[in-house]
Amino acid sequence: MDINIIKEVREKQPLVHHITNEVVMNFSANGLLAFGGSPIMAHAEEEVEDVSRLADGVLLNIGTLTEKQVNAMITAGQAANEAGVPVVVDPVGAPATKFRSKSIQTILERVKPSLIKGNAGELAHLIGEEVETKGVESTGTGNEKSIAERVAQTYETTAVVTGKMDVVSDGTETRTNSTGHPLLAKVTGTGCLLGSILAACMSATGSSVTKIHTALEFFGAAAEYAASQEEVQGSGTFTPRFLDALAMDPDQWRGDEQ
Amino acid sequence: MDINIIKEVREKQPLVHHITNEVVMNFSANGLLAFGGSPIMAHAEEEVEDVSRLADGVLLNIGTLTEKQVNAMITAGQAANEAGVPVVVDPVGAPATKFRSKSIQTILERVKPSLIKGNAGELAHLIGEEVETKGVESTGTGNEKSIAERVAQTYETTAVVTGKMDVVSDGTETRTNSTGHPLLAKVTGTGCLLGSILAACMSATGSSVTKIHTALEFFGAAAEYAASQEEVQGSGTFTPRFLDALAMDPDQWRGDEQ
Amino acid sequence: MDINIIKEVREKQPLVHHITNEVVMNFSANGLLAFGGSPIMAHAEEEVEDVSRLADGVLLNIGTLTEKQVNAMITAGQAANEAGVPVVVDPVGAPATKFRSKSIQTILERVKPSLIKGNAGELAHLIGEEVETKGVESTGTGNEKSIAERVAQTYETTAVVTGKMDVVSDGTETRTNSTGHPLLAKVTGTGCLLGSILAACMSATGSSVTKIHTALEFFGAAAEYAASQEEVQGSGTFTPRFLDALAMDPDQWRGDEQ
Repeated sequence: MDINIIKEVREKQPLVHHITNEVVMNFSANGLLAFGGSPIMAHAEEEVEDVSRLADGVLLNIGTLTEKQVNAMITAGQAANEAGVPVVVDPVGAPATKFRSKSIQTILERVKPSLIKGNAGELAHLIGEEVETKGVESTGTGNEKSIAERVAQTYETTAVVTGKMDVVSDGTETRTNSTGHPLLAKVTGTGCLLGSILAACMSATGSSVTKIHTALEFFGAAAEYAASQEEVQGSGTFTPRFLDALAMDPDQWRGDEQ
Repeated sequence: MDINIIKEVREKQPLVHHITNEVVMNFSANGLLAFGGSPIMAHAEEEVEDVSRLADGVLLNIGTLTEKQVNAMITAGQAANEAGVPVVVDPVGAPATKFRSKSIQTILERVKPSLIKGNAGELAHLIGEEVETKGVESTGTGNEKSIAERVAQTYETTAVVTGKMDVVSDGTETRTNSTGHPLLAKVTGTGCLLGSILAACMSATGSSVTKIHTALEFFGAAAEYAASQEEVQGSGTFTPRFLDALAMDPDQWRGDEQ
Repeated sequence: MDINIIKEVREKQPLVHHITNEVVMNFSANGLLAFGGSPIMAHAEEEVEDVSRLADGVLLNIGTLTEKQVNAMITAGQAANEAGVPVVVDPVGAPATKFRSKSIQTILERVKPSLIKGNAGELAHLIGEEVETKGVESTGTGNEKSIAERVAQTYETTAVVTGKMDVVSDGTETRTNSTGHPLLAKVTGTGCLLGSILAACMSATGSSVTKIHTALEFFGAAAEYAASQEEVQGSGTFTPRFLDALAMDPDQWRGDEQ
């Protein structure tokens, strides 16, 4: 983990424009604030262009997509592309319905993503493959590395496949991360929040793979620390401590463990 | 409480498709995850049919209804009816406005519910009666049993009237539950989350009255356990512990009390 | 702090109709419930008039505004004006985009607010001035008093400028408040929740400046108390304790400190 990337992000407090799903808006905003970023959420087509131009990063998450949102995402994404603002795309549940599948294709044809993140099923779907899923959740597979690499190559971007082992690839360099905790899967929107944090980290200097790898490692390690607190007995008591951990330095996590 | 019903649901991890109100989406998702179900939220008319067919249960909650949502609920409900997927209807605030009253009637004319749940005022409204309410909250009445029975008979379904004493009736068999805690009324969306959990439990085997009675008893007892924790000093500290309790076995609650 | 105002509000449990942003709906509802009010959220144009007439206060918050919401806010606000129900307007992020700026002007031309609350940048914008902002957050300025007074005079209302020092003014009488804690800025929607609580307090008897000053002092002091709890290590663990504190009497805060 390159702690200087985290420090740089916290210094900058990057403004991340979210067009994200309604389930996670509050949690993503609180998680990004804790981490050190600055969330803004706006999805009216009348204003998304203005907001994206203001922002240091744009997150497009299709978790509760509507037709109107597809248009707003394209408008926001194109404005960001023009202004040189990084765009992170999270194709939540893309394989689950024809509407999501078609919409994400439309978005990716019109907007150039700086990063695509999702689980194995979602990213495999973007390259025309199928992985067993349950609702919007993806079950394990052995091909995460290959999926990440091929998504990165196909879309000329950086790709992150999340799971028990996370993979980040720009199509050439590929790295994995194994920090994390099972409670993350018991709290809705942790994957969506990760997208917000990745968008914030894209605004730091350095190579995408390095920045994103650090963010993945940090996020999972924060979850491990939170889950290790003795007050934590389930997903309910885990969540406040996870938010606290996102605001800490890794040194603090280790200090508390002693 | 028939703990085997809870175990069966947790084994199955039923996917519950929510078209629910925006206030509670996050809390309902986290509560259902804790309990052992699998939430999916989607309300675009373009995809609700696909999602309902995938699901093990569908929850229609009119808490922040719009005209578009009425159509999406009918589409989702009819797809579920065709596919044999149970549909739970929560007529939140039905007596509060003409729009909600008319919309819930339209939904119930077009969709066959497996379960209707709400407070006394909401369910009384569905059979043309009035009970004193404050906003979307219903104040007590002595007719909960009669209301549940008549709603069940009128709509040929199972009905749950929630309150200090909960009642479940299929029109023939009627049971009551008195577990619960006043803090539940101080956390927004606990009634909505109960709807999600009832939808999950409808996917278990056995009679509706038995399954729902167990779910009601479990839900209230989880609240009692959470409220009894010494760290709990109000609705804020209650909520994380309630989510934790929803993931536990009743044995664990009793163990901790010793 | 005039504790009788808080007591009167808790006795009355005022129903506050929210048309607010999607990010904070859940938190605002829980915070208002904790404080002692009764939230209702509805934004469909078909029902907002009915709901506003039922309510003891109406809150219009433009945090995730859409064109549809502008119309719903005007309908709700006009119904409240006719029925003599206080209307609180929170122009979240008004200077950030042309759409928000134009929309809030339209709303304020058609609806007579009882109270306008926002940070210095938002309120300055309403009188045609500019203050440096970052996204929807306003950075400090030295003109809070003057801004509050001039907004109050221009819109013939009571105005609150929130910040490190809060100011409330009806254009003649101006008071300041310095309770509060930096963690409030790390939890999304604390300013929005303050709007809900101010709307609830507007339903009490007495002068607006007195009622609002008490509410501001209470809110900030609740945050100070919550932040002082030894379990609090960041925004995550702060939030449940802040909700608890909102339900307490100031005596309880002091008791715990001993």
